[in-house]
Amino acid sequence: MESGNDDVLRKAMTSHRRIVLITDGYSTPFVAKTAISILRYRTDDVVAVIDQEASGTTAQQLLLAGGDIPVVGSLSAVNDADALYVGIAPPGGKLPDEWRPLILEALRRKMDVVSGLHDFLIDDEEYVAAAKQSGARLIDVRRNRHKSTAKRHRFRPGNVRIHAVGHDCSVGKMVVTLEIQRGLAAAGHDAKFLATGQTGIMISGEGVPIDCVVADFVNGAAEELVKANEQHDFLLIEGQGSISHPSFSAVTLGLLHGCAPDGLVFCYEAGRDQVKGLDNVDIPDLADQIQAYEAVANLRHPCKMIGIAVNTRNLTAEEADAELFRAEDRFGLPACDVYRTGADKLVQASIALREEVFAR
Amino acid sequence: MESGNDDVLRKAMTSHRRIVLITDGYSTPFVAKTAISILRYRTDDVVAVIDQEASGTTAQQLLLAGGDIPVVGSLSAVNDADALYVGIAPPGGKLPDEWRPLILEALRRKMDVVSGLHDFLIDDEEYVAAAKQSGARLIDVRRNRHKSTAKRHRFRPGNVRIHAVGHDCSVGKMVVTLEIQRGLAAAGHDAKFLATGQTGIMISGEGVPIDCVVADFVNGAAEELVKANEQHDFLLIEGQGSISHPSFSAVTLGLLHGCAPDGLVFCYEAGRDQVKGLDNVDIPDLADQIQAYEAVANLRHPCKMIGIAVNTRNLTAEEADAELFRAEDRFGLPACDVYRTGADKLVQASIALREEVFAR
Repeated sequence: MESGNDDVLRKAMTSHRRIVLITDGYSTPFVAKTAISILRYRTDDVVAVIDQEASGTTAQQLLLAGGDIPVVGSLSAVNDADALYVGIAPPGGKLPDEWRPLILEALRRKMDVVSGLHDFLIDDEEYVAAAKQSGARLIDVRRNRHKSTAKRHRFRPGNVRIHAVGHDCSVGKMVVTLEIQRGLAAAGHDAKFLATGQTGIMISGEGVPIDCVVADFVNGAAEELVKANEQHDFLLIEGQGSISHPSFSAVTLGLLHGCAPDGLVFCYEAGRDQVKGLDNVDIPDLADQIQAYEAVANLRHPCKMIGIAVNTRNLTAEEADAELFRAEDRFGLPACDVYRTGADKLVQASIALREEVFAR
Repeated sequence: MESGNDDVLRKAMTSHRRIVLITDGYSTPFVAKTAISILRYRTDDVVAVIDQEASGTTAQQLLLAGGDIPVVGSLSAVNDADALYVGIAPPGGKLPDEWRPLILEALRRKMDVVSGLHDFLIDDEEYVAAAKQSGARLIDVRRNRHKSTAKRHRFRPGNVRIHAVGHDCSVGKMVVTLEIQRGLAAAGHDAKFLATGQTGIMISGEGVPIDCVVADFVNGAAEELVKANEQHDFLLIEGQGSISHPSFSAVTLGLLHGCAPDGLVFCYEAGRDQVKGLDNVDIPDLADQIQAYEAVANLRHPCKMIGIAVNTRNLTAEEADAELFRAEDRFGLPACDVYRTGADKLVQASIALREEVFAR
């Protein structure tokens, strides 16, 4: 078992080419969002999804992503798998007890086991022993030892930072930054996605699990991540939580100030007016949130909202069009749903922002 | 050695009646701020300060607090001491290497050793062994195991929360909340101070070391602290960092949203226009900061700024009067320097706020 440097272990994930995702018993869109994004962005690296009840169906049928990738009932149905990825992010962050035999089986087969939960695999003696015996690796994506405070670094002037922020958790902030990055790269620009959450790290093989850093070092961890990548022309920095989230706003602001964005993309899910995961807590007005984001961002670095990303998953195509129109009208900014309409308007807004920053 | 429950260890500090403070070689006001506040608020519990170069002087001469409490050169000069408190909060949070013999001597004498640094005493094998042998306790004030996210609790309606916020670190936010609490208590009100930093915890024997909580749980730790004390009429909650601080804003906002204040007191040091501890970083305009504080606070709970606490330590009496007048005029709020003028205006503003909250 390797237990050394976190960055080395993260990088090791990019070598996995035959990944088995496990969501067994938890294959709902909100909880299995890690699996869904891996299916979307590492499609070719995934060979199967484990869910006993859905065995025989496809990933597309079960999780609305991943096409014909088979859903199987056990590990024995898969040949030559090289890694088992925990595909869920349950509230509370616990690994389901009933998965233990399967994880041990994977380790015995010398498959790496990858988890993004708050409870670490390497704190489990049985997993550590099994990994040691076979030579498999336990990769806890959220583990980190960040202990540097932010120094308020002045980033390379040619580096423009665009950061996705949201009205709540789980509205698609990671997907928005990934899609803008893809769009910029396709247009010939030097753009890099920077992951700040477990799923983004599993997709890109690097990044900072910002919500698991000790509070005094959150800004510093984000700043270090950007500093290490300031040679790029565009950085698309995944956002976390929300400035208005009663539970996670510390993470949101530390990340925002640490990465000192030039531009923000405001992400919201149409129709969601209560905080996900809390009981009967209304989400504050979107305009108040946009104002609060701009106010706090500008305390650190000149910054403005450059676009709106609406998640219209619960709307019909017609309703979605109307929602995007309303958003553009209300906020005076380009709006798109990156799933339905692509990210082109946000890509163009990013390019325009870089020209504007240069002209200052 | 006791290594058990953090809260029990914190409470144990209130039993110390013959404390020796160590600031040896680091007795400057900014670094020794822990010692200075303990001298001010636990004067009767302190028997000596250790600083070899200043040996023979008084605490008042060395640290401008503590009156005739002697400064000594070694532990052997003190009889019957029951605890050694690390009196410094150096940037980086390391315990000076040269203090090791003295800490070991204290432990051999069965004195508890108390530290608020990021590096924990209990992670040092030599200290652990010495404490075990004598029965002394190692108390790491910053150690915590907070792992609950905030639930957005609705606090008891009769409970009014007042929170000190600042334009920077180390401007006197803790002192302001302690002085308002004293003033309210003296006027017959049921008011409690809630510590959120190491020095406040050393003074009150309870609280949450909020800057050392894992990011996802910062808001939750603050919320739990308030919830456990919501039976009081007034809570005066110590602030941390600043909403504009490039390094520590995550701590500031998580604490602010977790405690959901009804009123804020804005604290600043007159004449300080650059961030303490960073090179050439200007502090944003005070009015922009006040606006940002009110914007983010109201995303969680109705809240307003009720007063200004100016730290005028670098001004003459005449300059201080002029600064307070300017602050009142500019912000339209009562202003005082709690050291020079007392906290009475802020006490009155707190009482008025509670009446206003009730009348809603």
